[in-house]
Amino acid sequence: MTVGQLTLPQLAEACAGLGVCGVGLWRAPVQAYGVAAAAALVRRAGLTVTTLCRGGLFTSTDPSAHSRALDDNRAAIDEAAVLGTDTLVLVPGGLPPGSRDLYGARERVADALGLLAPYAQQRGVRLAIEPLHPMYAADRSVVSTLGQALDLAERFPAEQVGVAVDTYHVWWDDQAPEAVARAGADGRIHAVQMADWVTPLPAGVLNGRGQLGDGAIDLYAWRETLDAAGYTGPIEVELFNDALWERDGVEVLAETVLRFVRHVLRPAQDSPAPVPGKGSLSPAFRDRGIPEK
Amino acid sequence: MTVGQLTLPQLAEACAGLGVCGVGLWRAPVQAYGVAAAAALVRRAGLTVTTLCRGGLFTSTDPSAHSRALDDNRAAIDEAAVLGTDTLVLVPGGLPPGSRDLYGARERVADALGLLAPYAQQRGVRLAIEPLHPMYAADRSVVSTLGQALDLAERFPAEQVGVAVDTYHVWWDDQAPEAVARAGADGRIHAVQMADWVTPLPAGVLNGRGQLGDGAIDLYAWRETLDAAGYTGPIEVELFNDALWERDGVEVLAETVLRFVRHVLRPAQDSPAPVPGKGSLSPAFRDRGIPEK
Repeated sequence: MTVGQLTLPQLAEACAGLGVCGVGLWRAPVQAYGVAAAAALVRRAGLTVTTLCRGGLFTSTDPSAHSRALDDNRAAIDEAAVLGTDTLVLVPGGLPPGSRDLYGARERVADALGLLAPYAQQRGVRLAIEPLHPMYAADRSVVSTLGQALDLAERFPAEQVGVAVDTYHVWWDDQAPEAVARAGADGRIHAVQMADWVTPLPAGVLNGRGQLGDGAIDLYAWRETLDAAGYTGPIEVELFNDALWERDGVEVLAETVLRFVRHVLRPAQDSPAPVPGKGSLSPAFRDRGIPEK
Repeated sequence: MTVGQLTLPQLAEACAGLGVCGVGLWRAPVQAYGVAAAAALVRRAGLTVTTLCRGGLFTSTDPSAHSRALDDNRAAIDEAAVLGTDTLVLVPGGLPPGSRDLYGARERVADALGLLAPYAQQRGVRLAIEPLHPMYAADRSVVSTLGQALDLAERFPAEQVGVAVDTYHVWWDDQAPEAVARAGADGRIHAVQMADWVTPLPAGVLNGRGQLGDGAIDLYAWRETLDAAGYTGPIEVELFNDALWERDGVEVLAETVLRFVRHVLRPAQDSPAPVPGKGSLSPAFRDRGIPEK
């Protein structure tokens, strides 16, 4: 979604050209392209599918809507298996219309996990509960902290259910680092995503995630926290940002790789501009006019 | 601020007419009217000043800015004493420009409290740390949860420093009810404010607080939680809402009183429309076309 303006073939080509070896995919573009075709495309490009986003939205009190949600999640699990990723990211869902019962909604999430986790495990897919920032508590996720997500996950075996750690959602929470450590010790960090926090937030607060390094989050410190928790898996960058979507997608992807090197791989105080063509960066940077910060 | 479109004399008259016996004031309109004159005005109207908003904004790393902030807070404490309120609400402040150090900023808040709390106590004023919703963590308050605010307050005597509980900021937090109980047991609930949570949030996320009953928060449950914690003080309604500010202020105040009766004093499931002129409501409702929900 960071470069949602690219088609899947453009994305695969750009990743390969920039030395990006893994990609997190969203369901809608994969479905539009065809799941099997998308799987073949990314495999040919040498890409690993790090996660599929997203399942979830389990909180309806309407039985038929709830049943449709479960069916849709089984389909998402099947799609993840075809894509060859081991992780489906779940966004729990908000309050049903008119409801004020956060506790009840969270319990419906737990019930859904109980139904889906064994189905997923049979297909080699782990579920990753993503707590969303508390500003989404009413309309997108009644699970607002990493601690809550972990409490839910721990009702199930670690190989079935874990958490997704997204810096954009948890950066403000002084208890989140401890939850990362707890999740890591138990093998429950099933996905990691990074985005920066920039203000002012746009109306609707959906598409204002900051490019890495533009905002308030000490991304390197989060990476150290994840390292210390024993996490060795991929780190995705997930930016929902109208301004980035309006730009050339390949340029944005290249900029994001540079920012990742500068702000996630290196501490902020010690981050000279990466030298194109040096180190682990692809020579593809050399000929591009990548915006620098 | 709920009816910021009213002048102080209009506010005092409207409160008296509607049977509202206490009011929380903000510094800017009080200063513009004159602190002593405002104190006399509300006293003549039979109003108690429940709190003064707001001090705080302690997080600058610039020594002269920090020194100015402390001076301004001493002035706010003096103003609170003149107004006859026992409580100054503090908004801690966000990250300084370019900083990503939430921990350091929180410690600067603690340092400032240590300097100001004795000064306030000598003037009969308690400080109430208000945790703001995590969506303000970067730019307005590095203290995002009631638990954090209470951790800070507990470094000082309860008669000096407590917390302000605002439903808009803490409603999503499953740990907040426990923090309310802890604060209540220790006599540290120094202010309570209510607003509802409505979506979508407006750009900048400042002026979209919902009228009581319009949103996702179970206000009656919060009131029960406060009751159970032994809180017997005033409950303010603080709505920052562009749409409400565009309407007639007296009408908005009257609507807010009705909503308060319906959603805070009574459980949501059991809340028929209050009958104008009956019960504890002022007859002033009878002749007004109060919008009903």
